[in-house]
Amino acid sequence: MKEANRLQHIKEYYFSRKLKEIEKLQKQGRDIINLGIGNPDLPPSYEVIKELSQTASMASAHGYQSYRGIEGLRKSFARFYKKYFGVKLNPHDEIIPLTGSKEGIMHISMAFINPGDKVLIPDPGYLTYRSATLLAGGIPVGYDLFPENNYLPDLKALEKTNLEEVKIMWINYPHMPSGSLAPASFYKKIIEFGKKHQILIVNDNPYSFILNNEPRSLLHYDPGMETSMELNSLSKSHNMAGWRIGMLAGKKEHIDAVMKFKSNMDSGMFLALQKAAIKALNLNEEWFENMNRIYRKRKIIAEKIFEKLHIHHGKDQAGLFLWGKIPGETDSKTFTDKLLYEKEIFLTPGFIFGNNSKNYVRLSLTNSTGLLEKALKKLEK
Amino acid sequence: MKEANRLQHIKEYYFSRKLKEIEKLQKQGRDIINLGIGNPDLPPSYEVIKELSQTASMASAHGYQSYRGIEGLRKSFARFYKKYFGVKLNPHDEIIPLTGSKEGIMHISMAFINPGDKVLIPDPGYLTYRSATLLAGGIPVGYDLFPENNYLPDLKALEKTNLEEVKIMWINYPHMPSGSLAPASFYKKIIEFGKKHQILIVNDNPYSFILNNEPRSLLHYDPGMETSMELNSLSKSHNMAGWRIGMLAGKKEHIDAVMKFKSNMDSGMFLALQKAAIKALNLNEEWFENMNRIYRKRKIIAEKIFEKLHIHHGKDQAGLFLWGKIPGETDSKTFTDKLLYEKEIFLTPGFIFGNNSKNYVRLSLTNSTGLLEKALKKLEK
Repeated sequence: MKEANRLQHIKEYYFSRKLKEIEKLQKQGRDIINLGIGNPDLPPSYEVIKELSQTASMASAHGYQSYRGIEGLRKSFARFYKKYFGVKLNPHDEIIPLTGSKEGIMHISMAFINPGDKVLIPDPGYLTYRSATLLAGGIPVGYDLFPENNYLPDLKALEKTNLEEVKIMWINYPHMPSGSLAPASFYKKIIEFGKKHQILIVNDNPYSFILNNEPRSLLHYDPGMETSMELNSLSKSHNMAGWRIGMLAGKKEHIDAVMKFKSNMDSGMFLALQKAAIKALNLNEEWFENMNRIYRKRKIIAEKIFEKLHIHHGKDQAGLFLWGKIPGETDSKTFTDKLLYEKEIFLTPGFIFGNNSKNYVRLSLTNSTGLLEKALKKLEK
Repeated sequence: MKEANRLQHIKEYYFSRKLKEIEKLQKQGRDIINLGIGNPDLPPSYEVIKELSQTASMASAHGYQSYRGIEGLRKSFARFYKKYFGVKLNPHDEIIPLTGSKEGIMHISMAFINPGDKVLIPDPGYLTYRSATLLAGGIPVGYDLFPENNYLPDLKALEKTNLEEVKIMWINYPHMPSGSLAPASFYKKIIEFGKKHQILIVNDNPYSFILNNEPRSLLHYDPGMETSMELNSLSKSHNMAGWRIGMLAGKKEHIDAVMKFKSNMDSGMFLALQKAAIKALNLNEEWFENMNRIYRKRKIIAEKIFEKLHIHHGKDQAGLFLWGKIPGETDSKTFTDKLLYEKEIFLTPGFIFGNNSKNYVRLSLTNSTGLLEKALKKLEK
């Protein structure tokens, strides 16, 4: 049976091929230190795990759950958005829990994109915006993000292009891979831009609480949520990446459209996961402080690694990564391959995130200080 | 923002509207007995729950998991298929775990259907085959299932129709809602049919272990899996409906196509769920015997309820439901509404499953003997 045409542009990523190669080298006995993957290594709060176990031990916890999740979880997301972002959401119809925010990217694409519609995606940026657009039949149109402009789009330049067929614009601040933050003025401008051109602006917002003192939500700048939606996730903020718990917020009509797709492909999340997520969302600020203390320590060593490699990095990067420009005119693929084969250290080459980051590399802070120190020593040899 | 055209034929189901009405009546103090929903009420094995808690308490259990799931889970699915169905599957590339088999219906549709392709769906049958087809841009074409033919399709009649644009045919044996089983001869014929007309036959097989002594897999009749795939799930067989654990089996090329879509919309399942699923799959036959003992007791009372209501039902129905024909020429909507308002008992009206079941109703065995007895007493008043 031939696969559908929508799959024809979807290829296995260089990154996943490379990870297989690294695994193979490791099995051959080579002591490769993989600093490429952004997979949170710290555990969630003890209370969260306890709640999972307690709920799962209840006889009544095992049946199908409502598509929209339990009220308690939606209310906890709403409280969280009020407390940290000053955003008021109606838990009844402006929030839905997701099996991770990644599925939300596909749901939104399937809910709003008709074949041939254009979608603005960040270059550099997370790869899934592009593939979800293609799978929904849309046309991904990259928009440039340059370090000179602190990885913010040049909206004036964008307005000189034909925006008529553009239906969605994906933004992602704090930005992955660069760790750049967007100021309040930018959020205001992008909302104006969305309203003016009738483009749905969707912010993918999983990194707000990592090495960042001022978490912001796009929704704060569009109180009626006329032109905006936002994805969030417990993956990074609460060390629950494997648990697959995310959420989508937006106005009722937009949430309803997404639910038309989503409710036809899954049921509600396991009650024990929902109850545990409530515990996570109700943790106090100390949780973030303790987590960031660890990431700060790691970052100091990561910066030393970059220094050793003459990689230039900007200050005040938020999020789980350190991002920097490699020396000279070497491209990131050559640079990271050399580092892998000669020094047994793997960094993520920037080219996988887009055309604008061919001379950049990304180091993940989801590795212990011990492992980072070990990498540093390898370089000092 | 206008929703995409693909959503235009997707409506909120009568069933979910009706459930909201029932909830409202219950809140008003009416003692409604809802026998309509097929939501397993029994808990999973204690070992399964223990394994979930133990794995979740490990510090290393919380990161992202591979798209393809852990090897141990794929091997357990393979062992399960060998043991109960005599089907040999390569755990490396012929099996993928799913977040419930429902998502598999969408993944398969997105992986193989081009806009305009036709898809054969059972009438009566599970509603999601139709909506997933529409959402992928395909055209659902109902095929008739009649009690006279034991709810098996008339393949000769189908061959007289134009099958050229048909890409997928959904089958579902043991059949929901009728509980009919397909004999070995049928599986052989449907594989021939699929090969002859180049139609991918997909069997949705979640009910094999409920009130059925001879579990069968479609894949057994197509050793090379040239023209077949099969979905399965722990929802009903292991009382884990809320946990969202399913699987898809098929030949490597078909699995790879599905993975191209799936890997762009989610990550692997939470390790604790995967480990718990392994425990469930390795339970022995006693597990099924104990579960079926409970369902048999319930069925005896369910049959008495049908008798009281002069609903005629066939013998030897497998699965979670009792299915029967209502007396006279009343349609199922009128019949179930009358029963709801006058006797405060809700049964699922057959019309929601298709045009061929307008005079049928479905009673779910996922209700305790106590509740079923209570319903019976209400009818005896």
